[in-house]
Formats: sequence, C-alpha cells, structure tokens
Amino acid sequence: MAGEPLETLRWRGAPDGASLPGALELVDQRALPLRVETLRCEDVEATWEAIRALAVRGAPAIGVAAAYGVVLGAQAARGDLADVRGAALAAAERLATSRPTAVNLFWALDRMRHAAEGFATSGHALLVALLAEARAIHDEDRAMCRAIGAHGARLLPDPARVLTHCNAGGLATAEHGTALGVIYSAVAAGKRVEVLACETRPLLQGARLTAFELRARGVPVTLLTDGMAAFAMQRGRVDAVIVGADRIARNGDVANKIGTYAHAVAARRHGLPFYVAAPSSTFDLSLEGGGSIPIEERAPEEVTTFAGVRTAPEDVAVWNPAFDVTPAELVTAIITERGVISPVGEDALLAVLGRG
Amino acid sequence: MAGEPLETLRWRGAPDGASLPGALELVDQRALPLRVETLRCEDVEATWEAIRALAVRGAPAIGVAAAYGVVLGAQAARGDLADVRGAALAAAERLATSRPTAVNLFWALDRMRHAAEGFATSGHALLVALLAEARAIHDEDRAMCRAIGAHGARLLPDPARVLTHCNAGGLATAEHGTALGVIYSAVAAGKRVEVLACETRPLLQGARLTAFELRARGVPVTLLTDGMAAFAMQRGRVDAVIVGADRIARNGDVANKIGTYAHAVAARRHGLPFYVAAPSSTFDLSLEGGGSIPIEERAPEEVTTFAGVRTAPEDVAVWNPAFDVTPAELVTAIITERGVISPVGEDALLAVLGRG
Repeated sequence: MAGEPLETLRWRGAPDGASLPGALELVDQRALPLRVETLRCEDVEATWEAIRALAVRGAPAIGVAAAYGVVLGAQAARGDLADVRGAALAAAERLATSRPTAVNLFWALDRMRHAAEGFATSGHALLVALLAEARAIHDEDRAMCRAIGAHGARLLPDPARVLTHCNAGGLATAEHGTALGVIYSAVAAGKRVEVLACETRPLLQGARLTAFELRARGVPVTLLTDGMAAFAMQRGRVDAVIVGADRIARNGDVANKIGTYAHAVAARRHGLPFYVAAPSSTFDLSLEGGGSIPIEERAPEEVTTFAGVRTAPEDVAVWNPAFDVTPAELVTAIITERGVISPVGEDALLAVLGRG
Repeated sequence: MAGEPLETLRWRGAPDGASLPGALELVDQRALPLRVETLRCEDVEATWEAIRALAVRGAPAIGVAAAYGVVLGAQAARGDLADVRGAALAAAERLATSRPTAVNLFWALDRMRHAAEGFATSGHALLVALLAEARAIHDEDRAMCRAIGAHGARLLPDPARVLTHCNAGGLATAEHGTALGVIYSAVAAGKRVEVLACETRPLLQGARLTAFELRARGVPVTLLTDGMAAFAMQRGRVDAVIVGADRIARNGDVANKIGTYAHAVAARRHGLPFYVAAPSSTFDLSLEGGGSIPIEERAPEEVTTFAGVRTAPEDVAVWNPAFDVTPAELVTAIITERGVISPVGEDALLAVLGRG
C-alpha cells in the first residue's frame, strides 16, 4: 500500500479540545480528484445539504454522517433534557429526507433516535450519549469494513482482475471500504489484484473517486466507461465483479448505483462471479424484494451537463435514476461482516445475518 | 417532422459555379449540439483529419467523405492522366489509415480506386469520372438509407419505445440515417415512436447528436446514460433496440460503437428484439466472424476528460476501445437496403445480399 487513505469524515471538538460542541468535517467528494477540500458542517441543514449534494456519499458513509448530524442538531438546543431530546429527534426526521435509497441512512438514524429516547439525567448527559452513539456507528463501520474485507479476500483468485462500479471504497465508508475493502484486504494478504474501474456516469464516482483512491493506495487500476464493461468480459479481461450496495431486500435483491445491473447481466452471460460487499446495516428485511426499494431520481442536469459545460440540447427530456436493482439470482455471493451469503436467498441471508 | 435535417456533408464547386475544382464541406459534429459549424476540407490531409478527429463520423458518412477526399487528392495534381491517377490512388491509400473499424471507408475507397484505374482520355476526364463516382456513392447512400427505413419501419410495433445507442442517424450518413432512418420512416408511416437515446460515452454522440437530430425532426426523445439502458428494459420502458453498425462479418457478428454489446446482452435477457440497421457496404464477407474485426483504440483523454474538463486522476491507465462486437446470436435481425436478414446467419445474410 503506497499512500495514506483520506479520512472520509471526522468529528472535530471545539477549539478548547473538548468534543462538545463540535462539528462534522468531510472530505468534499465533489472536488475530487482535482482538489482535496474539507467541508465543515456545523448544523443539521449543512449536513443535510452535504448528503443531498453528494459531498459525502456511499451508503455507509451517509449513515455515519447522518448520525453526527443528529448530534449537531442536539448540541444546538443547549437546553434542558427535553429540548435536547426534541432537537435530536427533529434532526433525525429532517436528515431522513436527504436521500431515499441507501437504507444505512435510516438504520443509523434509528440508532440515534433510540439513543435520544434513552435514559439521561440532563441535556448535557444526553448530548454526550448521542455523540458516543455516533462514534460507535463510526467505529463499527471501520470494523465492519475490515471484516468484509477479510471474508471477501478469500473469494478472489490470485492473480485477479476485478471489475468494479461507482465507489464502494474508503471514501464510501469511514475507511477501507466494502467492495474496495475486499480488494485492499486481498492485496494485504499477498494476492495480485488489478482493478478495472467503470467511470460510473452520470457523476463519475469511478473516475473521480475509485481511480483516485486505488492509485493513492498503489493498487493497479484501469479506467473504462460503463459501456465497455461487457466487452471487457467478452474479451477475457475480467475474473470477477465486485460492487457495493445501497439497500438489499430480504430475498437478496440488491439496489446499487445505476449501471450495476447491466454489469450483473453481462457477468452472468460470461460465467463470471458477481459479488456484492455490504455491511449488515445495508439489509432491509422489511422489503420482500427489490421491486419495493425506492429509487431516487435526480436532476436532469447531472446527465445533460458536466462541470458546468452543457453536452446535450436544451430542455431535452432526461431519465436519471440514481440506482438500479440487481435480482438475487444474478448475485453469486453477498459479503457481509458476519460472513458470506451464498447462494443468495432469504434463508441463507437470515442465517448469516443471525436474524433467522 | 418538425424541422429540416442538417446536410451532413456536400461537395462545393469553385466560386464560378463549376463542380471542379471543389471542396468538401462538413457539418463539424464536434461542435454539436451547441453550435452548427461548417468545416471546409480542400485537400486530402484536411479530410483525413476530419475523419480521424470525428468532425465527420458514422460509418456511411465516413465512406462518402473519403470518396470526396480522393477527388480532392486528384484535383490537386492538375496534371496529365498519370499524375491525376497517381494522386487519386495515393489519396485513397492515405485516407485508408484514418480509422480502422468501419468497413464502409474501405468499401468507398475501393470504388474510388476502381474508378481511378478505369479508362480515361485525360487527367481532366479522369477527375470528372472520380467526382461522378463520389457523387454516386453519396446519392446511393441516401437511397440505401430510405430503403433501410422502409424495410425496418415494418418491424416496429405501434406505439413503440425504441432504445438506440450512439448516432446512426442523418448525421452518420448522407441523410435520413440507418437506425434512426428506421424510426423516421416508421413515424412517416404514422407510427407513434418514442426514442430512448443512450448518451454514448466517451464522446456522447447520443447526447450531442441523436438527441439533437431527433428533436430537430420532432420525434420524442429521452436521454439516459449508457448504464441505465438495462434498467430501463427491466422496468418495462423499452419495446425494441435499434443500432447501426461499423462492420458486419460473414456470420452476422456486428461491430458497432462501444456499449452496443452490453445493450444486446440486456435485450436478450428481457426478450426484446435487437435490430441492427446497416447498408450492404457495411458487410465484410472476407471475415468469418467478429473476432477478426480490427477494433480501434482511441486516446485516453476521451475517457479522462469530459467536455474539456479533467475528471480522472492524472496519468491513470485507460482502456478506450471505440467499438465492440455483438455476436450474431444476439441480433434479432439486420435491416439492409436489400431486405431484412433474420434469423441472422451466413446463409440468410448471403441470400439477402445477393452474394450467395
């Protein structure tokens, strides 16, 4: 590993060094790879906007950011216990509207709500408890990614040419990553891994973030457009596909960044394993199948412009779903921190998650 | 049809109105859709560069442009018969190096070589014959596209939601187009057709050219990224796929713009017809299968920048094949000016092309 990874997000205490009051600092991922900029969020609205506008993105990272956002809401109350509790719950309600698809957001907010509703002797004590819960979510995310990496690394051949989509790396989590975490762990275990990174239109997370972080860590990476992936498989350039996930239904259907499904269909045609790497917080057992996962549709300008330059006719109609759904039958295995789900289906899923 | 189509390219005579000496004028497709600019080519090198740099693109249009490029080479000789003939043959040799995949280029140059080697009484007479041959190629292209449109229009349901990739429209031919020609002919026949246009990374011919020309002609079009096509099919938004072709082997394997193969694989999964529309000049019967079609690889900057803005880390490795190959078994039918080849295979292909 060549370089130090960026710290996706962190809690910064007040100037006196205390943890409270504090602020959430994020690597502003909109500026990467050209510039490494820090975005400081001091209130709920700034956190909401950072999530909405993709300054922080990636299902696990969104969950961690939202947890700290609840702390920011609570610390603004600075009043008695009821005030702090009310502010925390209001912050959770607001942050839940930032993005609809990644379930880790709702999972993290549920934990923060639970903490907000717990016993506390004062407003300050509750604030301390909320910060502790957000830090726990943050720390657990690091541990989950390491465990996912360890489970997944065993699945890769040596050498391995791995195709990935979007960014399910350190920048999508607290650190290490899910899909890329598997790759980092395999490399750390001595396997020779090369990555084919799909650029991931419209917002180019593959080109901007995955290529950036793989190079920073010294993992060989080749960039290609999304439409080249199937041809790369046809020409024998791919051994496996690994992606992350934004929500996984009870039957194993996977919502992930738009473009994922096309790769899964192509991988099946070419007999290649298609792996999904995601922590248990990505599963939504309340949904029977992927058809009920809400799919965020984003602004047409993401497709018709880039960096302020218009690339399509004015006012052309656009369809811009941010995610798609890959049916369980196309997924070879889901790699979680609790183990590998394979073959993918409800029974195996519940057994590995320990909720059977 | 709302607007007048642009004239992709034309031969312009000298200021005195005579046809010779003349120049080739092209709509510079690099500037579309923001600006309609004319590029004037007065010699072989300018024509070579226009083809190489994609000022003119689309397999049939490249063939027509190259034919006129041979005339430009010949007229520069202005000498005796041997000089003009030599200059024409040298021009054909040079233009054959401009791009490797679209076989229409070599087909058109072969016709021009044949004309150059034919009987002529003087240099001027040969020049006149060369211009006549280039004009014949140009006129035949118009007629071929109309015939393709008529054959293909019958295959579309009414209403039809048709997904296409890249630009196989009027801008890829003398006029009317191949894949889009089928759509224009269907609309002219009273069918209600809506188009889903894939933007077509890296050079965005779908966003820049297909969306532009469909809107100019009043055909409803929705733009999406390449990675959304499979999801659009899964969600029931597509009735058929139609694309053009750059080279078709004897067995029916089709080379077309990179990204096409992924759509064909997805169309098969969803039981959707996948049509290829191309004139007989696109067939290369010397090649048994698609594996021998030379695939152009272009500069990494096409992938690492977007509309002139850098989007990937400096010096990242890039794979940038400009075309891919769709195997015949995924192609429902190939629509040519001589009829429809279906099911796709060598026998049907030779029978329709009349070379059995």
